[in-house]
Amino acid sequence: MGIVVNLEGGKRDAASIKELVDLTAADMGRVNELILSKAGSDVQMIPEVANHLISSGGKRLRPMLTLAAAQMFGYEGEGHVRLATAVEFMHTATLLHDDVVDESGMRRGKKTARMIWGNQASVLVGDFLLGQAFRMMVEVGSLEALDILSTAASIIAEGEVMQLAAAKNLDTTEDEHFAVIKAKTAALFSAAAEVGPVVAGAARTDRTALRSYGMNLGLAFQLIDDALDYGGSSSDLGKNVGDDFREGKVTLPVILAYRRGTEQERAFWKKAIEENDADDAALEKGIGLLARHAAISDTIGRARHFGEIARDALAPLPATPQKSALVDVIDFCISRVN
Amino acid sequence: MGIVVNLEGGKRDAASIKELVDLTAADMGRVNELILSKAGSDVQMIPEVANHLISSGGKRLRPMLTLAAAQMFGYEGEGHVRLATAVEFMHTATLLHDDVVDESGMRRGKKTARMIWGNQASVLVGDFLLGQAFRMMVEVGSLEALDILSTAASIIAEGEVMQLAAAKNLDTTEDEHFAVIKAKTAALFSAAAEVGPVVAGAARTDRTALRSYGMNLGLAFQLIDDALDYGGSSSDLGKNVGDDFREGKVTLPVILAYRRGTEQERAFWKKAIEENDADDAALEKGIGLLARHAAISDTIGRARHFGEIARDALAPLPATPQKSALVDVIDFCISRVN
Repeated sequence: MGIVVNLEGGKRDAASIKELVDLTAADMGRVNELILSKAGSDVQMIPEVANHLISSGGKRLRPMLTLAAAQMFGYEGEGHVRLATAVEFMHTATLLHDDVVDESGMRRGKKTARMIWGNQASVLVGDFLLGQAFRMMVEVGSLEALDILSTAASIIAEGEVMQLAAAKNLDTTEDEHFAVIKAKTAALFSAAAEVGPVVAGAARTDRTALRSYGMNLGLAFQLIDDALDYGGSSSDLGKNVGDDFREGKVTLPVILAYRRGTEQERAFWKKAIEENDADDAALEKGIGLLARHAAISDTIGRARHFGEIARDALAPLPATPQKSALVDVIDFCISRVN
Repeated sequence: MGIVVNLEGGKRDAASIKELVDLTAADMGRVNELILSKAGSDVQMIPEVANHLISSGGKRLRPMLTLAAAQMFGYEGEGHVRLATAVEFMHTATLLHDDVVDESGMRRGKKTARMIWGNQASVLVGDFLLGQAFRMMVEVGSLEALDILSTAASIIAEGEVMQLAAAKNLDTTEDEHFAVIKAKTAALFSAAAEVGPVVAGAARTDRTALRSYGMNLGLAFQLIDDALDYGGSSSDLGKNVGDDFREGKVTLPVILAYRRGTEQERAFWKKAIEENDADDAALEKGIGLLARHAAISDTIGRARHFGEIARDALAPLPATPQKSALVDVIDFCISRVN
């Protein structure tokens, strides 16, 4: 694993986002400047809270998608930098609100903003960043990009409510779960990728290609994240193995193991997830059950399925360094699990 | 009181929003339909939470301002209905988040959404409504209206954080307090009024007139609200006298009484507001101190000052039923306190 056949350049280590990082480095420099300036406020608490999360070492994958997708269609203006920053702010606002909703204590190996400044500040600074994101989109002036990103904002929130309503419900079907992660995670990947060709004035088929790429990449990304939570190395992730288990989150590995399990195993999952009886011994037992039912490997299999759709979405587009970099991102997302 | 000299129609009872309600009745019918449709979702919890607050008997003053302000400049399209609905959704989203931030139990005489569905649902449904608000603005397609309303969204959140940072701080100056209510309340009134002439394609001076009207009306509205919390009748308001006191909110009446008080009185306010020693006996004493230092009547005086600026902002505009109705709103806001 980690070595895949790259259709456009022979064999090489594609499980990296190095090409994407290199191609977008100059633009990302401007994104990072804009992040600092637009998270600024005379109200001191705003940059404090915002920068705590913004500087906490996220990969900034989503804004890089926007930048590469705009470059891919020859865009030479400045709008993609603002749109990429808006995408990152939407993501940051979602994380701030998520941590409040999930009552999370840690994110990326650091205390969450809510543990330091409280739930109130997290909610309000999230609102502020969302407002700033929309202002940046308005500055770009593309009603189509505004439409795509504001629709994504609604869908993300809808997905989060869906997840809340289904919380701790082990009867969630795989399809219902896909609907949740499509809304809460993949919609922003999709919008981030689609606004690239939109701001570049590319053809409709180019837009739908990038939209489909982003959506399926986002699904794969989330599924791998969920698999990693039961088996990744904690230093890579900045979160501990078993966080989802301890928080009683119903992710795909659990859905598969629960549906495939015996009566007795289902009783175990109910106790662990629904009644929060989720200590280290329970986690160890849970990981054993996931292995017995191939729940992790099949979750990765589902992720590969979406990864392939993402790859095929880009297939008809001409070979460019950006296309190659975006294909690498799929492999990178999936190879994180190895 | 309650009878004012109306400059355009002689003496009559102007302390009413009847004229505004009548002029906007047809448009408000469409706003109400749009509210129901845009708060809809397959995720059942979303319309439940949204409609709980939306149907709780707010006056819908803000969307009526947008509608009347558009009519005033001869607007005949449909955009003002969407913008008015977007304004109401922004307001509703703010209320949902505010109740989480303030840990409020009651609003408009009903349990708050967070008491019924939890903080999580209140945060997320607020986010959804904000997303829907932006989608409606995008549908209207006016980048200027989008700019005004997205800027207001940032400013409102900034004002809320400002208020949070200054919470329970009795050393807040009157100017600092005006900055907070200007951002958290008046900015939305201002934006609601300004997008009317904007969507109608009115002249720049008409836009600035309506913006200034809205801003000053909003300041007056908030100050009267704060005065009412220490003296209004609870059945009118759907909230009990003393709510702000019990929550330790530093509003203008308290700021004035604190600054004008003796050492001993300041110690009382510190205990009540900062240490939350705010039972019924303390409330009674507090109301006595407000009276001794004319803090309520001077808060109303400050509101009148802003009301006069709002009135003069509209003065140069030609006499129309809409102008007359908007002037009545100023009198209505202030007369609530009598």
